[in-house]
Amino acid sequence: MTTEGFRVLDEKSLIDYIKAIPSLASKLGNQVDNLKVKEVGDGYLNFVYIVISPSSSIVIKQAVPYVRLIGESWPLTKERSYYEAIALKRQHGLSPKHVPEVYHFDRTMSVIGMQYIEPPHIILRKDLIAGVEYPLLAQHMAEFLANTLFYTSLLYLTTTQHKSAVVEFCGNVDLCRLTEQVVFSDPYKVSQYNRWTSPYLDSDAEAVRNDKVLKLEVAELKSKFCERTQALIHSDLHAGSVMVTHESTQVIDPEFAFYGPMGFDVGAFIGNLFLAYFAQDGHATQENERKAYKAWITDTIADTWNLFYKKFTSLWDIHKEGPGEAYLYEIYNDVWEDVKQKYMIDLFHDSLGFGAAKMIRRIVGVAHVEDFESITDPVKRADCERRALDFAKNLMKKRRSFNTITDVISTAL
Amino acid sequence: MTTEGFRVLDEKSLIDYIKAIPSLASKLGNQVDNLKVKEVGDGYLNFVYIVISPSSSIVIKQAVPYVRLIGESWPLTKERSYYEAIALKRQHGLSPKHVPEVYHFDRTMSVIGMQYIEPPHIILRKDLIAGVEYPLLAQHMAEFLANTLFYTSLLYLTTTQHKSAVVEFCGNVDLCRLTEQVVFSDPYKVSQYNRWTSPYLDSDAEAVRNDKVLKLEVAELKSKFCERTQALIHSDLHAGSVMVTHESTQVIDPEFAFYGPMGFDVGAFIGNLFLAYFAQDGHATQENERKAYKAWITDTIADTWNLFYKKFTSLWDIHKEGPGEAYLYEIYNDVWEDVKQKYMIDLFHDSLGFGAAKMIRRIVGVAHVEDFESITDPVKRADCERRALDFAKNLMKKRRSFNTITDVISTAL
Ligand SMILES: Nc1ncnc2c1ncn2[C@@H]1O[C@H](COP(=O)(O)OP(=O)(O)O)[C@@H](O)[C@H]1O
Ligand SMILES: Nc1ncnc2c1ncn2[C@@H]1O[C@H](COP(=O)(O)OP(=O)(O)O)[C@@H](O)[C@H]1O
Ligand SMILES: [Mg+2]
Ligand SMILES: [Mg+2]
Ligand SMILES: [Mg+2]
Ligand SMILES: [Mg+2]
Ligand SMILES: [Mg+2]
Repeated sequence: MTTEGFRVLDEKSLIDYIKAIPSLASKLGNQVDNLKVKEVGDGYLNFVYIVISPSSSIVIKQAVPYVRLIGESWPLTKERSYYEAIALKRQHGLSPKHVPEVYHFDRTMSVIGMQYIEPPHIILRKDLIAGVEYPLLAQHMAEFLANTLFYTSLLYLTTTQHKSAVVEFCGNVDLCRLTEQVVFSDPYKVSQYNRWTSPYLDSDAEAVRNDKVLKLEVAELKSKFCERTQALIHSDLHAGSVMVTHESTQVIDPEFAFYGPMGFDVGAFIGNLFLAYFAQDGHATQENERKAYKAWITDTIADTWNLFYKKFTSLWDIHKEGPGEAYLYEIYNDVWEDVKQKYMIDLFHDSLGFGAAKMIRRIVGVAHVEDFESITDPVKRADCERRALDFAKNLMKKRRSFNTITDVISTAL
Repeated sequence: MTTEGFRVLDEKSLIDYIKAIPSLASKLGNQVDNLKVKEVGDGYLNFVYIVISPSSSIVIKQAVPYVRLIGESWPLTKERSYYEAIALKRQHGLSPKHVPEVYHFDRTMSVIGMQYIEPPHIILRKDLIAGVEYPLLAQHMAEFLANTLFYTSLLYLTTTQHKSAVVEFCGNVDLCRLTEQVVFSDPYKVSQYNRWTSPYLDSDAEAVRNDKVLKLEVAELKSKFCERTQALIHSDLHAGSVMVTHESTQVIDPEFAFYGPMGFDVGAFIGNLFLAYFAQDGHATQENERKAYKAWITDTIADTWNLFYKKFTSLWDIHKEGPGEAYLYEIYNDVWEDVKQKYMIDLFHDSLGFGAAKMIRRIVGVAHVEDFESITDPVKRADCERRALDFAKNLMKKRRSFNTITDVISTAL
């Protein structure tokens, strides 16, 4: 809201800022005389600094009132930082092992001080490109998704709690609008921001714009995104929002968070794994054909959904007589398994639809993924992208006909 | 919110109250020395006074902090009056010919001063029982529904406007909860408030509680009611919220208003017409078998939906390049008719589901309708109610298989 009192920090002024904030200084062991600061932001929107003192380290993230990647010509409220801070706190509370802790938040300056996710943590997308397997990834993501989605839904909350949580996040509308535009609209029309591997995908991009069935489906998904306040969703859960080691999985960057459809998060993550899957042929070499890695990715997709299903429904069972007002156990006890199954199959279809939308927009929309961008041969890249695009189009149209994630995966092979 | 400064008015203290409010006194031609006051509240919740001066008349409605019908043992926030006032103003703005004007609102006192809907206006339900036809009813209700629903949805609003309107009404959660309880929950479980024409309908009521398929459907409808912020809905649009003459139709009492699914309003109205339809056999006499009247009711049901469809989609056409962000014309121009048809068929199925839920709860839930209550012979009443109940159960379960309102009506004959 306020612009007054806001200034863009740099590596130098950040040090003075930190010195003046006792909670941050204390997190650095009060050894603030020889701080090392490194800007590591690789995202589209914000600045991220790692701050290192002799005894420990923290991360400082600052939002600026525009899109960093584009510059001041694309303004974007820095209030996103406020929503990121409250979402991080909520999600950390619900899934403490998979979300960094917030140490400090300054709304005027749009500054979040948070736990440093230390090396060897690396952004998942980088290692999906490098071909590194993470055996616990699916289980951890299933936990994160189940915990953050279940506990913020009407399966656990009373209507009163739910509506007041909805209100809390409605103010993040500018970020919702950005998603609406770049995910659900721009890829389906001519837009100055769209790009694709041209000329190879020119007719593919045009086909998306002219695919009537696809457009009817994406319209329905967009309405659901705008209207369905099902749970507090992260809303930007791509492979660049997940940091991993072999033992740990951390979800960062929920600045798009709001009350929306659960399937948007589940789908984003699964869709990004499928993008990584389709990019593998572009990274294959004679020594490493990536066959085993492709199998690991599809296993991870299957495990993510299946473990999510298990964890989510088991939370529901545990809290079946809890405060949640949507499905009173007194009414549904004689039909309990059916209720869960129906809920989950609807969520499955939503997830497939949203996942497909997220894939399509990464191929013909404004923001692309390194998985494909790093394939230097444009013919090869276009080939991978086309197969991903065709898969996603089919998935969006046919999503209601799938009953298991295995069936979905079989259409990708 | 405030209790301080609130006091329950009566016919005497109301006069002093009016004298102190210039806007009300002026609406009475400033002739406030010989006011006549008559309490006419016949609803479940509030007090309604007609105030008559030598030159004109107004209506004063006061909410008390409990359910009038039950008493102080069932508390209910008097803040409902605030939501009624802002909904009345919004709906009057959108459909001025069919909603009374608000002259005055006092949040502390929960008092609304509004336009007196003069005789011969009568509550629609009364004349549905008496067997009086209203040739313009369907057209007027179609206009009211189309105007109030279209213009408050994302078909007309930007996302920013929509989310801030959602927020505005989230505070009306206590009234939403009441609906959730009495419409979507209590009829499907044993509840102290439920009643039915006993013993005749004992096994019918039990069958509702044990109908697994029905309960799965009502669970889905309840979630939609709680989660889908599709438009500003009236949310209590039964035949007692509509006042009619042969030339005029007025919709009152939107104290339950919030952002919810459009089908809840369309369904409420249509469901109440079906209740009236099934009650006719209980009102038939040898002189008047009510055959023609039943035909008028079913015609009115068909006309309401068909005219609503026409009016709603024509508003959409008019504003197809307007501010609404859900279906950008630039994307959907080559598939425009299909988009509308898909939207409307989904809305149709929602309306049938919600309409059925509203019917069921009037037969086995806490609040009944005079249409049946006025049938004094309990055997006859139970008979009418059972046919209505069976129709509604089937409608809820099979709603997605209906394509036209005529098909629906044919299952009632
Ligand atoms: N808590 C953290 N610990 C370690 N690195 C982080 C942390 N938060 C962000 N980063 C790094 O900064 C990059 C950008 O952060 P992110 O929150 O995704 O910003 P943006 O919103 O601009 O996308 C991440 O890809 C990651 O490398
Ligand atoms: N503006 C009005 N003009 C004339 N009569 C009205 C008006 N508003 C309410 N009434 C009368 O008062 C009754 C109760 O009003 P209503 O708003 O439905 O109260 P409740 O919320 O208690 O149901 C209506 O049935 C109608 O007879
Ligand atoms: Mg990021
Ligand atoms: Mg971000
Ligand atoms: Mg009423
Ligand atoms: Mg009322
Ligand atoms: Mg009865």
